Amino acid sequence: MSDTRAPLRVAMVGYAFMGRAHSQGWRTAPRFFDLPVDPEMAVLVGRTQSSAEEAARTLGWAEVSTDWREVIERDDIDLVDICTPGHTHAEIAVAALRAGKHVLVEKPMANTLAEAEEMTRAAQEAASNGVLSMVGFTYRRVPAVQLARQLVAEGRIGEVRQVRAQYLQDWLADADAPLSWRLDKEKAGSGALGDIGAHIVDLTHFITGQRVTGVAGMLDTFVTERPVAESFSGLHGTGGSERGPVTVDDAALFLGRLSGGAPATFEATRYAWGRKNAMRIEVSGSTGSLAFDFEEMNVLSLFDGTDDPRTAGFRRILVTEPDHPYIEHWWPAGHGLGYEHGFTHQVVDLCEAVAAGEQPRPSFEDGLAVQRVLDAVERSSADRSVMTETGG
Amino acid sequence: MSDTRAPLRVAMVGYAFMGRAHSQGWRTAPRFFDLPVDPEMAVLVGRTQSSAEEAARTLGWAEVSTDWREVIERDDIDLVDICTPGHTHAEIAVAALRAGKHVLVEKPMANTLAEAEEMTRAAQEAASNGVLSMVGFTYRRVPAVQLARQLVAEGRIGEVRQVRAQYLQDWLADADAPLSWRLDKEKAGSGALGDIGAHIVDLTHFITGQRVTGVAGMLDTFVTERPVAESFSGLHGTGGSERGPVTVDDAALFLGRLSGGAPATFEATRYAWGRKNAMRIEVSGSTGSLAFDFEEMNVLSLFDGTDDPRTAGFRRILVTEPDHPYIEHWWPAGHGLGYEHGFTHQVVDLCEAVAAGEQPRPSFEDGLAVQRVLDAVERSSADRSVMTETGG
Amino acid sequence: MSDTRAPLRVAMVGYAFMGRAHSQGWRTAPRFFDLPVDPEMAVLVGRTQSSAEEAARTLGWAEVSTDWREVIERDDIDLVDICTPGHTHAEIAVAALRAGKHVLVEKPMANTLAEAEEMTRAAQEAASNGVLSMVGFTYRRVPAVQLARQLVAEGRIGEVRQVRAQYLQDWLADADAPLSWRLDKEKAGSGALGDIGAHIVDLTHFITGQRVTGVAGMLDTFVTERPVAESFSGLHGTGGSERGPVTVDDAALFLGRLSGGAPATFEATRYAWGRKNAMRIEVSGSTGSLAFDFEEMNVLSLFDGTDDPRTAGFRRILVTEPDHPYIEHWWPAGHGLGYEHGFTHQVVDLCEAVAAGEQPRPSFEDGLAVQRVLDAVERSSADRSVMTETGG
Amino acid sequence: MSDTRAPLRVAMVGYAFMGRAHSQGWRTAPRFFDLPVDPEMAVLVGRTQSSAEEAARTLGWAEVSTDWREVIERDDIDLVDICTPGHTHAEIAVAALRAGKHVLVEKPMANTLAEAEEMTRAAQEAASNGVLSMVGFTYRRVPAVQLARQLVAEGRIGEVRQVRAQYLQDWLADADAPLSWRLDKEKAGSGALGDIGAHIVDLTHFITGQRVTGVAGMLDTFVTERPVAESFSGLHGTGGSERGPVTVDDAALFLGRLSGGAPATFEATRYAWGRKNAMRIEVSGSTGSLAFDFEEMNVLSLFDGTDDPRTAGFRRILVTEPDHPYIEHWWPAGHGLGYEHGFTHQVVDLCEAVAAGEQPRPSFEDGLAVQRVLDAVERSSADRSVMTETGG
Repeated sequence: MSDTRAPLRVAMVGYAFMGRAHSQGWRTAPRFFDLPVDPEMAVLVGRTQSSAEEAARTLGWAEVSTDWREVIERDDIDLVDICTPGHTHAEIAVAALRAGKHVLVEKPMANTLAEAEEMTRAAQEAASNGVLSMVGFTYRRVPAVQLARQLVAEGRIGEVRQVRAQYLQDWLADADAPLSWRLDKEKAGSGALGDIGAHIVDLTHFITGQRVTGVAGMLDTFVTERPVAESFSGLHGTGGSERGPVTVDDAALFLGRLSGGAPATFEATRYAWGRKNAMRIEVSGSTGSLAFDFEEMNVLSLFDGTDDPRTAGFRRILVTEPDHPYIEHWWPAGHGLGYEHGFTHQVVDLCEAVAAGEQPRPSFEDGLAVQRVLDAVERSSADRSVMTETGG
Repeated sequence: MSDTRAPLRVAMVGYAFMGRAHSQGWRTAPRFFDLPVDPEMAVLVGRTQSSAEEAARTLGWAEVSTDWREVIERDDIDLVDICTPGHTHAEIAVAALRAGKHVLVEKPMANTLAEAEEMTRAAQEAASNGVLSMVGFTYRRVPAVQLARQLVAEGRIGEVRQVRAQYLQDWLADADAPLSWRLDKEKAGSGALGDIGAHIVDLTHFITGQRVTGVAGMLDTFVTERPVAESFSGLHGTGGSERGPVTVDDAALFLGRLSGGAPATFEATRYAWGRKNAMRIEVSGSTGSLAFDFEEMNVLSLFDGTDDPRTAGFRRILVTEPDHPYIEHWWPAGHGLGYEHGFTHQVVDLCEAVAAGEQPRPSFEDGLAVQRVLDAVERSSADRSVMTETGG
Repeated sequence: MSDTRAPLRVAMVGYAFMGRAHSQGWRTAPRFFDLPVDPEMAVLVGRTQSSAEEAARTLGWAEVSTDWREVIERDDIDLVDICTPGHTHAEIAVAALRAGKHVLVEKPMANTLAEAEEMTRAAQEAASNGVLSMVGFTYRRVPAVQLARQLVAEGRIGEVRQVRAQYLQDWLADADAPLSWRLDKEKAGSGALGDIGAHIVDLTHFITGQRVTGVAGMLDTFVTERPVAESFSGLHGTGGSERGPVTVDDAALFLGRLSGGAPATFEATRYAWGRKNAMRIEVSGSTGSLAFDFEEMNVLSLFDGTDDPRTAGFRRILVTEPDHPYIEHWWPAGHGLGYEHGFTHQVVDLCEAVAAGEQPRPSFEDGLAVQRVLDAVERSSADRSVMTETGG
Repeated sequence: MSDTRAPLRVAMVGYAFMGRAHSQGWRTAPRFFDLPVDPEMAVLVGRTQSSAEEAARTLGWAEVSTDWREVIERDDIDLVDICTPGHTHAEIAVAALRAGKHVLVEKPMANTLAEAEEMTRAAQEAASNGVLSMVGFTYRRVPAVQLARQLVAEGRIGEVRQVRAQYLQDWLADADAPLSWRLDKEKAGSGALGDIGAHIVDLTHFITGQRVTGVAGMLDTFVTERPVAESFSGLHGTGGSERGPVTVDDAALFLGRLSGGAPATFEATRYAWGRKNAMRIEVSGSTGSLAFDFEEMNVLSLFDGTDDPRTAGFRRILVTEPDHPYIEHWWPAGHGLGYEHGFTHQVVDLCEAVAAGEQPRPSFEDGLAVQRVLDAVERSSADRSVMTETGG
């Protein structure tokens, strides 16, 4: 039986942490899911030929290039997957869209609101030509998060009354952890706010189906100078004796108001000792509530306020049943998924959108909505009048 | 062997939820602890003679009165324990202090900042005559909370960098739960803010040893009208067909800045379905962190950032060891304490302060510090300019 | 209004750990519950006058005696509460029953099967004269355990298929922890088996409503010699340089078969580092399951196999709702109870049985059923043929 | 740079649940790890050509065959990976070893002790010719399990005193779940005992470094007749109206004695409602203890008995740090792994053993040791004299 599916020839720009994760997604999706298109890992784009070649061999890309501009013009490329640091997203994405390529861009969509707006305009124009675009908020693809969204949409917890969202990490809690591009405002745009705060804002938008309309926020930098990194492995590096400035926020705390009127608390920090990747959200509704913590990513907690109080309690749902999102393609109940599965699901959803010619979510507009919240937090934080003194 | 200890003759005003809890403290403390004074449950004060008599018999008070003014003038009363709703605290406390009686007042100390300031002045004057005063933030007396305070003071988690505090309940999540005095601004002063928000502010002050100096806050009322209660048992009542207005906040969310510079998030709500009495605090320091949740009141979680990363993890400390605060007087390890034990510990600490002639903590000044935070939250919430619009 | 209730005049024999817990029960029950009789803490019986007097003053008993034989003959005593070590239970209980006194005896009911049988015969004879008897398996009175029993009886988990029960402690895990009477076969009868294994056998009987009919067991002693104690506080003591033999089991592991056919695993140990008082039971039924761990004594976990698999999960029920057993007399939801509350509930249930003239549970027959299981475990453990070699 | 590594050409027999998992391991290992050999997914062997072809395309195998005998004779095959039901393992494995192919065989190694012994003899003979063999107990490759083994070997918990091991599932708890080959003694050998009980025996052997030398056991079948399956997806199928007999055990409970003298409890069941894949082991040693539950596979709990009791508690170690086994090749801290990662690690370890010419573990001898325990449990269960009656 020959494969009659259309190919989807992908070029990926960047191959660090996110590039490795995206590659695993492209490689794995066709092995577990029936995709309506046939993705090909065609070109890996990097800055230096030899490193790109080594990465391509390891990650499974057919060829390499050091010139993304040339690649996006190639006729044999259908989709550009952008995994570079945030300050390069806008330029690559806009050019790719104008060249008629579908675009998947890692989050945060951009480093500034202006860039995000420009990207969104480009995406809207491209869409009229059938060219699609998507932002890589992969945590939406965790089965427990999908289930949370479904339950809210089905009215299982009633009207949304409150949201509490946190993204707690501790990889900077050690004051001697070295600098990286993630601590450089030029490259990263912001610190905890854009890197992980963006995730909990998007998660709130996704699960509630509402948008954050107003904020009051505080940004803090606890350690203002750190060793310059000599080597890196993932987020962890080794520093030397030279020191340099941290130019981004270490923690971002903000209150928010949702479009439906619900108040919310948000906290993003890289200084919460002991919390490794605790992306958490709890939504309290008028008839029940939901809670999720990425450190137990296969679990969703549900409290159903309509249960008999005698036997009501938070249900620890292991989201590994055949009826749960994405799960029938994987393993039997209780055989949990890991971090990278979200990237596989992202590929699945993107392929299905491309095949159907429909706008995938999160769209650039969804990404822009997140960017607007981040921008408002920065403005709020800069405005001293936001805080009321206790006078104590 | 005759008892050579001085008596401490107590009059308690009010005998509802808090009166029952205080009575259990007065009754139980001498049975498990060697007190330096001999407390006597002398007089119970209520509004109606027959109800007060029945309460006194049940709770173990020797006599009753319906006139607190008369009682505070009696020579055979040493201490007045005030368990009435907040709007009556200031009048009784100030009068009792002026009459030379030690005073224990339930939290919130008062319904308004002005009352709290007046009470604090009265307490300072009384103190110069050896008359002592204390606010009933009993959660300070939970062994795990005491241990948290000790560990911070000993530098076990380094410098305080961040605090996240929540007090989540759900007894109003059902929109048909009836009205009570706790939902009436005249009597309660505020809603979740003063009732439970006060606790997490005091807990933050106590555990960190710092004060909240600034806030940005939001107060929300989700259900503005409720059935008038026909009967009550504890916090739970039955409503009829008549309805009345809710005049207090249902949820209070605020950001805070501590005197040492650390940012903090606070949330107090009675609408978090499934959270019954989740008073939680997590303090992230420069070398470790601590977490507590009253729903597991015998547990303190500690992450020590100086542990070898290979075997580092949040330690679930069962705070029931003989070396833990208060525990040697109770049961063997793992035989946990309950809610009311805090009231027994409060009596113990108060008796020791009286015997030593030393200011017990939390003092009225400590209570005033909490009140100032609550007041600033109310002002912040009323100020529309605090929120920055996202423009999305 | 005068009290028209009959008095229930109690004499308690012994005043160590269990005596303190029982006293708290007698003192507290009338303060929170409407008892149909009026318990009086009349006489405390000890071996030495001065120590007994000091204990009586602290614990609240009206008078003391050093002669239990005399006390059980007194006309003004209605009930004898036996809190001494196990080897004395049979003699005191049988004599008291023959003297027409109701008897509450701490567990384990007796140190030998023969004693338990004699006690049960005495109880049956006494019962025909309206004299009642009860064994102090107080863990039955934990609200979450009562709820478990109710749910099984209501058929909520269907037919019982399997039981897994553990009682894990660690107070002997340190090989230098000193000897106590609990490690002396003469006084304690057995070690972990009778002290804590008895509890999980009774709990299994209570929750399932079935009896253990057969066992295969192993008893182990890990540390055969320990320092002789110089002082004690609770279970914890300080040892000197002298050493003495441990003559009881440190751990008891056994398989069991219930009368309804279900297989079960049991483990009782005092060597499980980090488990302080982890009395756990999980019952898997044909349509659901229940799990309990005393280290979270206010929680019962329920999995309802008839829930939609999409939202099914273990429910963490905080057993602090007004509808839960005993709770309406205590505090609002989420304000948990502690270890000693079981002793208060025991007094409540005993007083109600006495007033009604009905056999309280657990009866001596229930205690004998436990004793038979312990005895069979000892016989099985002594029988080398029970273990099948793997020949590996 | 050309690849100078030797190829490792693999033929896999079978492609159901285990075949899919093994394929993911072969595919993924080279992408994240530097392997010393270059694995090639050469041939997939199945019973029917068309199904095998479809599977090969999906799973990524270069060609297919319907004749395993032919394949094991091919010169261009280096290793045979056996993923068929247990009753076929011995024949294929012995033939492959004799043909000079390395062999990886899924657990349980065999359905009978005789087969396992034959396989072990064949493995020993083959080993003298440099032909290697390994049993697929992949749970050994979970990072938290590896860490547990390391900590025991390093003496971190002292001498092993007790083991408690459980493997709890619920996919048969519903009495209407259909039959499968796993419930057929001819094909599966046994039920819960061999399928999941084998895992906890191997895990005990691996983590403690000791062997189970004696057992006392009970096997139970709760539901003796079930619908014949009409279709299957993973472990879950749909049954029709026809019914057939269950010929294996539903639950296996046994006590064990380790070679070092420690007693242990084991339970394997597919009827524990709410437990989806709760493979749990807790090892109590003389100075600490370890606990693991596969439902939280990225977590190892450690209690260090030498910690100050004031701050001692079970440490919830997120086994996702760069220093943890296998982790540096994956993601940053807190970005957990899933079920299938064990299969990738298995490939890594096997490739390293092949390159080094060293016996990989678990060897067939390790597999035989497990088989001996299972066999002894079956004999013990069949021996009525093992159980001692309580006579109650």
